[in-house]
Amino acid sequence: MFRKILYPTDFSDCAAKALEYVKKLREAGAEEVVLVHVIDVPGVEIMDIGAAGLGMTTAEYEEALQKKMRDEAEKKLEAVKEELKSVGLKVSVKIPEGIPFKEILRIAEDEDVSLIVLGSHGKSNIREMLLGSVSEGVIRASKRPVLVIKRETTVMW
Amino acid sequence: MFRKILYPTDFSDCAAKALEYVKKLREAGAEEVVLVHVIDVPGVEIMDIGAAGLGMTTAEYEEALQKKMRDEAEKKLEAVKEELKSVGLKVSVKIPEGIPFKEILRIAEDEDVSLIVLGSHGKSNIREMLLGSVSEGVIRASKRPVLVIKRETTVMW
Repeated sequence: MFRKILYPTDFSDCAAKALEYVKKLREAGAEEVVLVHVIDVPGVEIMDIGAAGLGMTTAEYEEALQKKMRDEAEKKLEAVKEELKSVGLKVSVKIPEGIPFKEILRIAEDEDVSLIVLGSHGKSNIREMLLGSVSEGVIRASKRPVLVIKRETTVMW
Repeated sequence: MFRKILYPTDFSDCAAKALEYVKKLREAGAEEVVLVHVIDVPGVEIMDIGAAGLGMTTAEYEEALQKKMRDEAEKKLEAVKEELKSVGLKVSVKIPEGIPFKEILRIAEDEDVSLIVLGSHGKSNIREMLLGSVSEGVIRASKRPVLVIKRETTVMW
């Protein structure tokens, strides 16, 4: 029932806690993990400021920033991938750019996953109180089952 | 990892969909289910109106109403219990009165469950937009992992 799992990570503590559950789901029949990190590119106003500071055009700055974010994500995802493979899971990696919850839901459908495993801190900062958090967006709009793991969850094994 | 499951039901379509997952979790190692229905007693204003209509005091009406809600819940829970037992799960039943999400979270702690399996319709009516739905309350405040199942979820087996 949980054969193919979508595991999105922003490399936070919450996502690390969820990773423990993804690994443990191997014993409950999981075979395959789609490991996702969404590159959440800042708005154009931020880009303008960053570009001005380095004497670049906004386009140059955006390209440099995206490359840096992608390079860093690839390195971190490689470590997560190895961790998942070490317990016998097959892993594919996706690094889309866009609005995190929308990209996560798009990949869930495209990849026809049986479950999304999501870390959630359970508390909202002001931005999230206004806009909703990534986990809220996923839980609200997902047609697939979502396993929500809190950072403060006591691991049960 | 999912040995002891808390499954709250309000006998809705969403809860019925979640029940399919609870049964299926037997194969993933679940052994025990705490089956919960919270009796959500109406406010005193509603009680007054109901009592007046039947020529009862509010206290008499409240007692009669609680008894009726409890009797109906017991009957429906018995059927759910048999369904869970038929797949080899051990089942205990709880019928607390109170605010549903708070009672669910209290029992999750008291019973030290490893997972809460929750049906969610994913859409909010006006009352829920203002007050938050039961599932939102549970997801937000639970320290335990929560598996959220949508009514429109395509069952994956």
